[in-house]
This record gives sequence, structure tokens and C-alpha cells, in this order.
Amino acid sequence: MVDVAKRAGVALSTVSYALNGTRPISEETRQRIYAAMEELGYKPHALARGLASKRSKIIALLFPTPERGLGLTELEFVTSAAEAARNNGYHLVLWSLPTDSSELRQLLQQGLVDGVLVMEVHLNDPRIELLRELEFPFSMIGRSADSSGMSYVDIDFERTTQLAVHYLAELGHRQIGFINHSQEAFAAGYGPTVRVAQHFDEAIATAQLQGVSTFCHDSVSAGYEMFNQLLTEHPSLSALIVMNERAMSGIIQAVSERGWSIPDDISLISLVSSARVAEMTLPTLTTLEPPIAELGALGVDLLIQQLEAHDRELPQALLPCQLVVRGSTGQVRRTER
Amino acid sequence: MVDVAKRAGVALSTVSYALNGTRPISEETRQRIYAAMEELGYKPHALARGLASKRSKIIALLFPTPERGLGLTELEFVTSAAEAARNNGYHLVLWSLPTDSSELRQLLQQGLVDGVLVMEVHLNDPRIELLRELEFPFSMIGRSADSSGMSYVDIDFERTTQLAVHYLAELGHRQIGFINHSQEAFAAGYGPTVRVAQHFDEAIATAQLQGVSTFCHDSVSAGYEMFNQLLTEHPSLSALIVMNERAMSGIIQAVSERGWSIPDDISLISLVSSARVAEMTLPTLTTLEPPIAELGALGVDLLIQQLEAHDRELPQALLPCQLVVRGSTGQVRRTER
Repeated sequence: MVDVAKRAGVALSTVSYALNGTRPISEETRQRIYAAMEELGYKPHALARGLASKRSKIIALLFPTPERGLGLTELEFVTSAAEAARNNGYHLVLWSLPTDSSELRQLLQQGLVDGVLVMEVHLNDPRIELLRELEFPFSMIGRSADSSGMSYVDIDFERTTQLAVHYLAELGHRQIGFINHSQEAFAAGYGPTVRVAQHFDEAIATAQLQGVSTFCHDSVSAGYEMFNQLLTEHPSLSALIVMNERAMSGIIQAVSERGWSIPDDISLISLVSSARVAEMTLPTLTTLEPPIAELGALGVDLLIQQLEAHDRELPQALLPCQLVVRGSTGQVRRTER
Repeated sequence: MVDVAKRAGVALSTVSYALNGTRPISEETRQRIYAAMEELGYKPHALARGLASKRSKIIALLFPTPERGLGLTELEFVTSAAEAARNNGYHLVLWSLPTDSSELRQLLQQGLVDGVLVMEVHLNDPRIELLRELEFPFSMIGRSADSSGMSYVDIDFERTTQLAVHYLAELGHRQIGFINHSQEAFAAGYGPTVRVAQHFDEAIATAQLQGVSTFCHDSVSAGYEMFNQLLTEHPSLSALIVMNERAMSGIIQAVSERGWSIPDDISLISLVSSARVAEMTLPTLTTLEPPIAELGALGVDLLIQQLEAHDRELPQALLPCQLVVRGSTGQVRRTER
């Protein structure tokens, strides 16, 4: 740094001020110092700039590591968030940690990142509590139980659930089942699981239909068994709303093994599934499709806005999924059984 | 920084040496300086440490942004690489850039990352040429045409293709089709596309079978049309090897529309597909399944080994996919048509 000071023709203390930002120095001098650092081969100038502004221009995407990994649709958020960060001149680091990890505190205190974008938020999420305690800037894709005063973008699950139920009602379905994620996810307060369970009951009541709501582990075999159990107990169900991509595969197998066809014998809607996943199956799945690119990009935008604006307004946004009708839904044909 | 020097009880120049690493200072002094920085609330100490060691402990995962995004199976690499980085005490940033982007040079010269892990490597890959020109540490998941002296982990496509062809031969199939990625991917030298095209022809010749090899765009509709075209031109094909997840969905639709069943009328193998994708369809797909977690983790390990070891040995590894038999393959039943 002594060499840098010499080369830039400034005092050593000026270089220090440029790097730690403790005293204002002129932009011209700052540039001279950076030029000198580059000429002398001080490679990590991104780091030096980060020190200078107390900003690293790095944000973290924080998502949990359940044993099963992220769902295929959730994975697509990761790339959309990475692109949005780059378009804003930021880097996105991936922090894949259990929600109750003590490692998060260490990572935050390393000072590497300016802010955190939290995915897969639970209603009472220890990660959110920690971020608030440390007064660390963050936004959420999803939201906790009390999200007042916090910045988030989330799916409008109420509107999304209504869209699914009303569409099935229009097709003449009167008895509709809902297969959620697991009871454990519900008990842990995983936002989508808790919210859609509630909104399904509301939408069924409003539309004066009969509904059966159930939980299911995220696996093919659990979906297979749950379908058979559900149809044994409620044989007149003619449509299922499924928010569980892995269970959906097992459901399709179970339908086929009965010699039933989709949608003639049962209509299926996949809630919060991307087009790529929906097109893997035959028939292709009618979905409530999340605006993945928008959610990823908006989540990043809200975080960066918070980092760069000084008015500290914390914006929130709810976006509904879009109903995309494909081959797995149709009018009721099984009038009696 | 003047405050840090005072608090740590060292000269200002010593703080400079600690931060830029130009002269050796004792570990005890270094620790004293860091402690002073933390006490004084110099938050970005990860950056300061990065400057001190000329290492940021950040690596980048570089993957292209084709308009269609990554395949679902490729996406799973991202999370396995992130976990492997964390287990080694590194951060993983995502750089999603076109392969011919001029932005890569800028990003590398920012000095933020110690090394780069390159995904979706093409045989003549401008990213690899740039990394070599800049003498920037990198490893590849995949490899370019001449990978001598470079560090990579890749799928053993030769062995993988042999496994698929031999398994079909054992089931009695004599006429086997191969549906690859697009002609454009082949022309651009995308490694898997070029390698499997070659190894398919070799494996067919060795096994004394008849083979038809074709390209297909990565879309459901292209797969649908390609299947119909292929079966019109070669009606006695009884099995298809498909390395194209989106086309596979269209193929399954086309099979079903003919009133054919899988595998009685046609056997299907999905090459380089994960279990999660294979279980979406009915019947579930027999796959050659890539060791995703191993490839992601090994890619990160090889890069970090390169960054931390001084002997500059550049390890290479080829891992075959594993044959996982599911419902889409069976013995030849269509003896004539």
C-alpha cells in the first residue's frame, strides 16, 4: 500500500481513507489510487472497492437444504435471481443452509454480503428473526407470519387457490380434493402449505362445494398411496388440486393403475408448477404457474432498492399464479360410481 | 485505518501490509489488527481478509444463459456445487453469461473470485480460451476438445452410451434410434452432443446393430414431430435413446397418440436424466443417471485443490452414468409391423 501511495502520488493515510471510507476524499484522487492499484497488480480491487464503500455489491440467496433438495420449480428461481442480480451490477452467492443453522450468524458477520434474499420462508422462521436481530438488510421470496415492515415478494396464494377452485367449479366439479405438502411442513409453518390449506377451505365454502384437504410427503410413493386412500374414503371426488410435484407423479401412476383416464375419470391441477415440469407428464398438467422470472427478479430488485435507497421504505408485492389449462382437466363425466 | 493502527498498537504501514499482503507480518500481529477492525466496527472483514491473503475464498459457477435456460437436471448441479463449496469454507457466486460474452473478462479482472467452475462446456469454448489467456484458475464440469493440462470432471459419455446400447441389445432390440440435442448444439460443439453422437455410432457398430442418429430441438413439439418423422422413415425401430429431456415429453405424447404403449411398442431410455425428472412421467423412465452430487462436489473440490495446492497438478475425472431400469424399457414384442 506504500507502493500504491507512491505511485498515486498521495499520502499513505489518503490511501487508507480511500480504502476504508472513513474520510471523504475527492473522486479524482480515489480514481488515481485505484489506477495505481491496478497498475501494480493489486488484483483484488473488487475487494478494495468493497472496503472503500463498505459495500461489497454481493448479495446472498439463502435457501434451506431439506434432505430432498429444492423442488424442480423452486430451482428455477435460483437462475432468475442470479440474472436479476447481474443486471443490477451485483453478484449473487448461494447459501444453502438448514433453517435453524447457527452458521448463518457467522456468515452474516463475515461482512461479505450487503444483503440477503431469503427463499422458502416459514411462518416463524429463525432466519428472519436472526436477520432482524442483527438489523441485516434482507428481502424474502415468500413471507413470515408477521411480515409488516419487511420487504417481500410472494405468490398471492389466496387468489391462486381461488382461481383453481373456481375453474374446477366451472367445469362442473362439486367434490374436490386438495393434496398439500406434508403434515411436517405444515407444522413447521412452511408458508405455502399453511396458506393454501386455509384458502382452499375458504374457496370451497364460498363456492358451496365439498372439499377434502390432506397432507402428503414429497415422494412418488406417498402420492401413490395418498391417492388410493383418498379415493377409497371419498369415492365421489372428481378433481384434485395438488401442490406437491413429487406426489403428483405417484398420483398419475395410481390413476393409470386403476384403468382410469385423465381427465375423463379425474381432473388434476398442479398448483405452483412451472411449464417445464407440467410438460413432462402425459397428459400435460393444467397448472397454476408461478411467475418465476418476475418473482426472482423482483425479490432481487426489492433487496437492492433497500440497500441503495436511504428512505428505508420496504416494498411488498404479491403476484398471483396464472391458470394455464393443459390436458389434465376437463368437465365432469363420471356422474356416478 | 489510522484508528485501526492505533487500536492495534501497530504502525499504519503494518496495517497496510496486513491488508495487502505485500510483506510478511506475524500471525499474532495480523490477529491483533483484525480484532481491532472488528472492535471498531469495520464490518467488511471478509473483504479485508481477502485483501490480506489475496484470496477471497469466493469461487464462481459459470453457466451459459441459453434462451431456454438450463435443463432441469443441469439445475440440480447448481445446488450440489453450492453445498460442496460451503463444506470447503468457500462461497459460490453464480455467473450466468452467454458463452461469447465480453462481460466475463471484466468480471474476472474485478478480482472478486479466486477461481471459476465452468459448466456446459463446448468443445471450442471462448470462456476456456479466455481463462487460459488470463491464467485464471478454473475447473470444468465437462471439458473442451483439448483438455490436456486442464482440470475437469465430466461424465464418461463413452461408457454411458455403451451401457444404454448394450442394455437394449440384451432386451433383443436390433434397430435403435438416438435422439440428440439440436444440430445447432452439435455445430457449436456442445460436448455431450458431439461425444454421444460419436459413441452411439461406435457402440451400434460394435454390437452389430442398426442405428439411426438424429438431432432435435429442445422442445416438446420438436420431440413430437421428430418421433413421427423417425418412425415413418424407419418403421422397424423398436427402441429410442433420447438425450433431450424436453423432446422426451413430446415423444411420449406422440407414442400415446398412435395408440402405442411403452415399452410394449417402443422402449425409451433417457440419457443423462436425474431421478426426479425420470419419475415425472408414466411409465417412469429408464435412465442413464448422472452422479449429480458427485460431479458438482468433485468439480468444486478439484478447483479448490488447484487454488490451495502449490504443486499445480491438475486432476481430471470421468464418471459414468448409472443405468437405472424403470418402466419405459422392455423386451422387443413388436416382431413385425
